[in-house]
Amino acid sequence: MRSIGRYVWLAGGIAGVVLAGATTLAQSDRWYPSRWGADDQRGAANRLTPAKVLEATKLITQGTVYQLGRVYEAGMPMFGTRHYSLRIPKAFDMGGKNQGVYHDEVISGELGQIGTQFDGLGHVGIGELFYNGNRMDDFAKPEGLTKLGIENVGAIVTRGVLIDVARFKGVAQLPPTYEITAADLKGALQKQGTTIRPGDVVLVHTGWGALWMTDNAKFIASNPGIGVGAAQMLVDAEVVVVGSDNWGVEVFPNPDASLAAPVHQLFLARNGIYLHENLDTAALARDGIYEFAYVFAPLRLRGATGSPGNPLAIR
Amino acid sequence: MRSIGRYVWLAGGIAGVVLAGATTLAQSDRWYPSRWGADDQRGAANRLTPAKVLEATKLITQGTVYQLGRVYEAGMPMFGTRHYSLRIPKAFDMGGKNQGVYHDEVISGELGQIGTQFDGLGHVGIGELFYNGNRMDDFAKPEGLTKLGIENVGAIVTRGVLIDVARFKGVAQLPPTYEITAADLKGALQKQGTTIRPGDVVLVHTGWGALWMTDNAKFIASNPGIGVGAAQMLVDAEVVVVGSDNWGVEVFPNPDASLAAPVHQLFLARNGIYLHENLDTAALARDGIYEFAYVFAPLRLRGATGSPGNPLAIR
Amino acid sequence: MRSIGRYVWLAGGIAGVVLAGATTLAQSDRWYPSRWGADDQRGAANRLTPAKVLEATKLITQGTVYQLGRVYEAGMPMFGTRHYSLRIPKAFDMGGKNQGVYHDEVISGELGQIGTQFDGLGHVGIGELFYNGNRMDDFAKPEGLTKLGIENVGAIVTRGVLIDVARFKGVAQLPPTYEITAADLKGALQKQGTTIRPGDVVLVHTGWGALWMTDNAKFIASNPGIGVGAAQMLVDAEVVVVGSDNWGVEVFPNPDASLAAPVHQLFLARNGIYLHENLDTAALARDGIYEFAYVFAPLRLRGATGSPGNPLAIR
Amino acid sequence: MRSIGRYVWLAGGIAGVVLAGATTLAQSDRWYPSRWGADDQRGAANRLTPAKVLEATKLITQGTVYQLGRVYEAGMPMFGTRHYSLRIPKAFDMGGKNQGVYHDEVISGELGQIGTQFDGLGHVGIGELFYNGNRMDDFAKPEGLTKLGIENVGAIVTRGVLIDVARFKGVAQLPPTYEITAADLKGALQKQGTTIRPGDVVLVHTGWGALWMTDNAKFIASNPGIGVGAAQMLVDAEVVVVGSDNWGVEVFPNPDASLAAPVHQLFLARNGIYLHENLDTAALARDGIYEFAYVFAPLRLRGATGSPGNPLAIR
Repeated sequence: MRSIGRYVWLAGGIAGVVLAGATTLAQSDRWYPSRWGADDQRGAANRLTPAKVLEATKLITQGTVYQLGRVYEAGMPMFGTRHYSLRIPKAFDMGGKNQGVYHDEVISGELGQIGTQFDGLGHVGIGELFYNGNRMDDFAKPEGLTKLGIENVGAIVTRGVLIDVARFKGVAQLPPTYEITAADLKGALQKQGTTIRPGDVVLVHTGWGALWMTDNAKFIASNPGIGVGAAQMLVDAEVVVVGSDNWGVEVFPNPDASLAAPVHQLFLARNGIYLHENLDTAALARDGIYEFAYVFAPLRLRGATGSPGNPLAIR
Repeated sequence: MRSIGRYVWLAGGIAGVVLAGATTLAQSDRWYPSRWGADDQRGAANRLTPAKVLEATKLITQGTVYQLGRVYEAGMPMFGTRHYSLRIPKAFDMGGKNQGVYHDEVISGELGQIGTQFDGLGHVGIGELFYNGNRMDDFAKPEGLTKLGIENVGAIVTRGVLIDVARFKGVAQLPPTYEITAADLKGALQKQGTTIRPGDVVLVHTGWGALWMTDNAKFIASNPGIGVGAAQMLVDAEVVVVGSDNWGVEVFPNPDASLAAPVHQLFLARNGIYLHENLDTAALARDGIYEFAYVFAPLRLRGATGSPGNPLAIR
Repeated sequence: MRSIGRYVWLAGGIAGVVLAGATTLAQSDRWYPSRWGADDQRGAANRLTPAKVLEATKLITQGTVYQLGRVYEAGMPMFGTRHYSLRIPKAFDMGGKNQGVYHDEVISGELGQIGTQFDGLGHVGIGELFYNGNRMDDFAKPEGLTKLGIENVGAIVTRGVLIDVARFKGVAQLPPTYEITAADLKGALQKQGTTIRPGDVVLVHTGWGALWMTDNAKFIASNPGIGVGAAQMLVDAEVVVVGSDNWGVEVFPNPDASLAAPVHQLFLARNGIYLHENLDTAALARDGIYEFAYVFAPLRLRGATGSPGNPLAIR
Repeated sequence: MRSIGRYVWLAGGIAGVVLAGATTLAQSDRWYPSRWGADDQRGAANRLTPAKVLEATKLITQGTVYQLGRVYEAGMPMFGTRHYSLRIPKAFDMGGKNQGVYHDEVISGELGQIGTQFDGLGHVGIGELFYNGNRMDDFAKPEGLTKLGIENVGAIVTRGVLIDVARFKGVAQLPPTYEITAADLKGALQKQGTTIRPGDVVLVHTGWGALWMTDNAKFIASNPGIGVGAAQMLVDAEVVVVGSDNWGVEVFPNPDASLAAPVHQLFLARNGIYLHENLDTAALARDGIYEFAYVFAPLRLRGATGSPGNPLAIR
């Protein structure tokens, strides 16, 4: 098959990976069953509690709502051969003496994995193993995932924290392949005077989002983002979701050319932590809003790997 | 063309409507420009304010979150030839010594007008005229609406009110074609001890939602819902959104067999008020939750007539 | 996942098949490499030659063309959750003083496997093994099959033979689960005075096609068709394609309740013979046309498992 | 709406076309009803007869089949926001002791108007008027054209003629915006020693097809093709289909910057002659095959404006 616009996940030339060996490698450190039990399908969403809802609610003092979701439209940056199509058919005539007419729209695309997207636990695996040790062939069925589908996540209403790493580094936008370290996160949090608490959603502002629809080629070619060290710090902090204003959340390509999306694996497969990609965090950063109520409810698409959406930060 | 599963909007046999006469009829009562100006595209969303956000926030005292959105899945009830398809492609191999693999999903359908759906101002018109007097041919383009698209709505965070009309009438489910009157709404509100305020979202519980995925044929054949009188009462109350646990919000078919979706026209075209259809209000009704924070942000689908979603009621 | 409209391939209750054992079973009789070499991707299409084109051409004496393809439309019978959707968007305005406007259509569906469909060699396998011993994981990739794709087949211009088994059995339509035997095929051929030659396309008329769009539920619930014995006779006759006026070509369900689509496996995987399903053979049968030039060129959909189309029988 | 990848049909800046005036202009020369009657939906396909089938058959003397259809694949050149997507879902398990498994594919796109495409009579109009004076609003419905749909065309088996204009001009490829004249067609026919007869299909070789998948940007930016004069010559010759190895058949942009696709209008709307675009005529030209049997049967997509396909030239 002709290779067209194929996304290169690796900076280097690792090829010929033998998936058959996945089990051995992946099981070597016994990362499953999950801390929420061998049958759990919700991962870190289990950290969401009424108390976190109330903690988030207390942050709403101004009544200001920030939309963090991008517009879905033709021409937005996408990987490889993914697509997004929207068409308005001719109007339907309902008739009646009141002359009823209506429009609808037909849409197609990889809707859980384009534009602003929320990655579910069935998205990324380690060889044939996914969150809680679920084997690909056991749950990934053609008509939808029979486990780990996005419909299991439920509503996310909790405290949100923005970490403005660009500001901490004194730039509007981090360099293209900059790997954000744990020290960067700690430094930025300290500068902001913000702390992270269990059950939080953490958004990392890199400034990369300014390229969205202004320089799509640069936007998609790479992105600054968190590395494995920073990610482990967030795992240890027991967060629920990590989001960013880029397409990968984690740095792409990874500085270690032999690794493909290791932070996705660390978050999704090993720790049940969700990713929220292509967020628009510019207004929050501009206004210096580092704590807020984060509200997002994935579309309940049975058996999907992710969800589009328009998450909110409320103050 | 063979007529397959074509939805009959009219109970009777009105045919041969001459759209060319639409302007005359529709303009007879001068319902445009809108009260928010001739260029407005957001309608009743203009009633949303920081004060309404704070009013809603004060209702959150328990930290309980109700998901009002239905699951999107094969087999859910839909009109006519609309469709919904989700498929999980074979896994993509990212390679790397960490054996990265991922799934995504390809989805197609009339996504703004299937399942739980939020109707935007470009959805229903009166002949060739839509909200604010916009003419169909001027804004309804094949690649998306150039005005009144759902991306203009923004986030909806406001006080929500549930009116349990089924409970008021002493039934679990209203009869198939029952027209809810203004008196019903007033009676139910009085019984509940609830009032409606400007800028609210109003959800009407009819019990019809119990048929979802249990008796789809009955669910879609008709539905109890508000009539024009009840709708006018809600217009006068200056609400933002009216939702229900059925597919039409308004009664279908209309008791006046010559009318097709008159409440959609009254709300969307004449008053800029949104509809939210196929909500799951059962848990709210069961728990007797009549006031809550309603949070919903339409997917920002440029030029779309509506949005899928999972709106929340928070207490 | 809720089980909706799931097609039951088996008449009985065989479950828990362990695919891991596939290799052993499938390899027991060493049906690969193929007779056309270990690298071949075209199977029985290799039997097509200029001589067969000329043989077919000689049958064209009247200039009559029969369209064997069904109309693709909403409401046509389909399996399970497969779909077909066609919408005409609003017209596009090209402008110009000549007032250019155009329509197009947006279509989605499992296009190689709905309606009149031509099954390619990547469609059905035996456990993880497909034609020529190709392993599923080696060639079935998310963006298309990297081997055995329908684009490899090429044009089919050859002698076609209709075997009217319904007429042979003295009925307009064979019973719902009737298994056509080798004796039936031989008897019908003898009655017709027709012979089968290597490189032919064979179409089996069962009368089942009369149910298309007239009783879709009955049409799809089962179908009379050839059994393994009749299929083996066609294999031995060295044909290229076997088609029929039903959805399965072979009898469904198989009289042996423990077998799922054994003729598909015999034809596609073991012998590289193609299937052509949901053909409209009524006019050929009515006119007693048992020999003709068969012309079909699959859509060259890179990496697809099959192709829609409108094959022709010319006399 | 952001203008992304919008195709510019006009070389100049004509804007603000008032469609309301279309009727007057389009009717000024009374080009309808058609010569085949006011109810005709097949146009020049009415010229296809058994005699033309036999005439074509006589040209088959070698048994050589040329596939004229391109491969449909990700990355092929397309206009504006049209798309083509193919995905192979995970394999479906049919079970059985014979371990049945199958693949299918989910495809979406503007299938009648991408890749190798056959333009039907509902594709291009003059203002609001299409072939036989059909008004857009009368037949172009959201679920499909109710008149002029591609399912009306039927099979095309007739004499085909290749006119190698590139060879006549002594080049491998005509210049990007070269307008082929009637004199060019006549000169090339004379050089080839070929004549055109009523009921023929005419293919024009420009050499532009060599850019397909090798320089898509150049391919789609313009193309050499026939002008109005050459087109009128083919109208007068009473052909059925005019095809070419480029995306427009006619020259794009038109040398008269105020005209948008005038040849499409002349062929489709005024004369019921079909266009066949993006053909691969390279092998025919290379082999000097100027007469052949042309066989093509549009996919019977009810209500579609065009059809994909793989037309054949047989010698």
